[in-house]
Amino acid sequence: MWSDRGRLAAKRLAALARCSQPGPGITRLPFSPEHRCALTLLTGQMEAAGLSVTLDAAGTLVGRLEGPPGARTLIMGSHQDSVREGGAFDGIMGVVLPILALEVLHEEGRTLPFAVEVLAFADEEGVRFPTALIGPRALADTFDPAVLDLIDADGVTLRSAMVEFGLDPGAIPGLARDPASVLGYLETHIEQGPVLEARDEPLGVVTAICGIERHAVSIEGETGHAGTLPMDMRRDALVGAAQLVLEVNRMARATSGLLGTVGTLEVFPGAVNAVPRAVRTMIELRAPDDAVRDAAARSLTDFARNTSAARGLTLDMTRTYQQPATPCDRGLSERLAEAVTSVTGKPAPHLPSGATHDASAMADLCPAAMLFVRCRDGVSHRPEEFASPDDMGMALAAIVSFLKVMSDPEAR
Amino acid sequence: MWSDRGRLAAKRLAALARCSQPGPGITRLPFSPEHRCALTLLTGQMEAAGLSVTLDAAGTLVGRLEGPPGARTLIMGSHQDSVREGGAFDGIMGVVLPILALEVLHEEGRTLPFAVEVLAFADEEGVRFPTALIGPRALADTFDPAVLDLIDADGVTLRSAMVEFGLDPGAIPGLARDPASVLGYLETHIEQGPVLEARDEPLGVVTAICGIERHAVSIEGETGHAGTLPMDMRRDALVGAAQLVLEVNRMARATSGLLGTVGTLEVFPGAVNAVPRAVRTMIELRAPDDAVRDAAARSLTDFARNTSAARGLTLDMTRTYQQPATPCDRGLSERLAEAVTSVTGKPAPHLPSGATHDASAMADLCPAAMLFVRCRDGVSHRPEEFASPDDMGMALAAIVSFLKVMSDPEAR
Repeated sequence: MWSDRGRLAAKRLAALARCSQPGPGITRLPFSPEHRCALTLLTGQMEAAGLSVTLDAAGTLVGRLEGPPGARTLIMGSHQDSVREGGAFDGIMGVVLPILALEVLHEEGRTLPFAVEVLAFADEEGVRFPTALIGPRALADTFDPAVLDLIDADGVTLRSAMVEFGLDPGAIPGLARDPASVLGYLETHIEQGPVLEARDEPLGVVTAICGIERHAVSIEGETGHAGTLPMDMRRDALVGAAQLVLEVNRMARATSGLLGTVGTLEVFPGAVNAVPRAVRTMIELRAPDDAVRDAAARSLTDFARNTSAARGLTLDMTRTYQQPATPCDRGLSERLAEAVTSVTGKPAPHLPSGATHDASAMADLCPAAMLFVRCRDGVSHRPEEFASPDDMGMALAAIVSFLKVMSDPEAR
Repeated sequence: MWSDRGRLAAKRLAALARCSQPGPGITRLPFSPEHRCALTLLTGQMEAAGLSVTLDAAGTLVGRLEGPPGARTLIMGSHQDSVREGGAFDGIMGVVLPILALEVLHEEGRTLPFAVEVLAFADEEGVRFPTALIGPRALADTFDPAVLDLIDADGVTLRSAMVEFGLDPGAIPGLARDPASVLGYLETHIEQGPVLEARDEPLGVVTAICGIERHAVSIEGETGHAGTLPMDMRRDALVGAAQLVLEVNRMARATSGLLGTVGTLEVFPGAVNAVPRAVRTMIELRAPDDAVRDAAARSLTDFARNTSAARGLTLDMTRTYQQPATPCDRGLSERLAEAVTSVTGKPAPHLPSGATHDASAMADLCPAAMLFVRCRDGVSHRPEEFASPDDMGMALAAIVSFLKVMSDPEAR
């Protein structure tokens, strides 16, 4: 049965994939005709599951199943949008599967002792506008109206894009939920990494959404003719940068949970016969534990300062971005792990999420948990992104099981 | 007296500096109006020194002082051309100073027991056409007529540029000299590096013109999301490249005479949150001893192969350029060192030349030696290039002394 439902999920995702700009893969930006297309399909799916459907002022599609009077609400969902030329699973799968789970319960004639909502948030990727997470921030009352003045590549403000889409951005502050009214938030998402596949596990429970920081590093030495400047008189910026690249890698490998990446590096003047005068590079650190990340950043800064000084190089290392880690709620994650075990018959693997999700904003409102689904080759944000129907069937079974586990008053 | 003559050299170089395209520094390309301008001034200087002046078919200005019948010829000179926005000393100083030396002997009424020629070669920098050293190669009979078909940035062939300049490229093969007729070649040149300045020495004797080789290195790994790809599953091309950068530097510092530089490095895809998939970089090695350079290249290739394999990276390392070292003639260099000592009163410093010179082509014809003159801050190929009048006066005195030393039959 779950395999059949998994194939149905795949069919629905394939239909939603046609709500895309032309070109390779899926391009579905917020407040666009493609967004409208997806909302139309999702509305039909929600109604088939017995949900009453509304579109809130932030552009979040809300499918609600009422519970007993005064009962709290369990929220499930993810985002409808994609990156440019992205995949058919990132985000949207976390809307399609909870709808299907409620459809299963609807068919079974089963009622829940709480209200349930499935949400399709408008914008998580931040591709069209230089902001993201409007929907969950509105619910958590952390929305900053100043972002409405941000513009897209065509000079259209977020505000006018939303108005054009039929929304009333002025009503966003009214969307804030009372935390006491919300039972929790469950987000289902493809892993976007290779860990579950490598462990031969279809599902995993997320421990935390990693914190991130980025440092812009500028190392300055002195150029000179590669044929005439003796080695012992050189102040070669690339040699200093190479030491730092290796140390970032060494430290991240040696530190549990830490990810460290140097993804960009430019050499100036950049000629085969010129000693490098300057290097500009970026260091990114991620960890599920902010203390681990802080310690790594301090240690790397010291390392960079000391090695630059030893080589006669000047260093400018500036933190340009920081986002704290969001631990998932322990109790809700334990319920989710029970649900996973009931489906797979073995303990659920736990893993951090290196990427950010709507759950990081929802965690400001209520306990949040995340269910990861294995994806092929760890690939995401590309047309080849893929989660198998069987794995989606398992995820669906786990969501249904989670809803049943949560129905036990002791679990809530 | 020598300081006065040094100031005269500076004055003549300042006049020659006006034979330049507009813009910062000196831009004097071969077979151009600026080349013609320089030849006119140099012709006047040569005639004032009692030389008979001709322009040969390769565009080399030849100022000749006859010797006794049947005597061999001592050749001195360097190139008239500059890089774009270069300095006023590189090359041309090695024409102006020998002319002045002969002017001094002329004034003294002193005759030499050999013929002397001062040559101003047309093109050593290879800036206008993708070839260089036409003049010395013609004399050494190593000129390849195929280069006459090479074109400049405007599509003008070297052949037509030379014809336009009034030359007969077809006559170049007839310029080859009989090695038995040539006593040797002395080239005076600014050091273009910081070694003499650091040692507080005005003059130095070149041991060899370094051999050069360049390797194009491509390292390929696999990209992935910097937030989701665990450290122990990464094949990060930049980490592999950083190891190689450090090893090139370590090996060059540890190996006497070896210069090793990584001057360019590009990262793909080059995003702050993407593990580097590929790096393209260039390694340049220089050494006055080809065996040292060969051994370094073999060792670096092994290192790159082993470290790439250990990190799951694929390596493509291809030698794209090679030019063997040209040792300076030991006997002629000893005479030059004696002359330097007679001027400075202390042993002459010996040093290799990391840059290439006309002497490397002349060495195919006859014994060659090079006199280096200290330059400020080691700077060359830039408008700030500078050698002091005092240092040029010392160089002039050394050239005069060299001519006198060579007049001793036992020295020849």
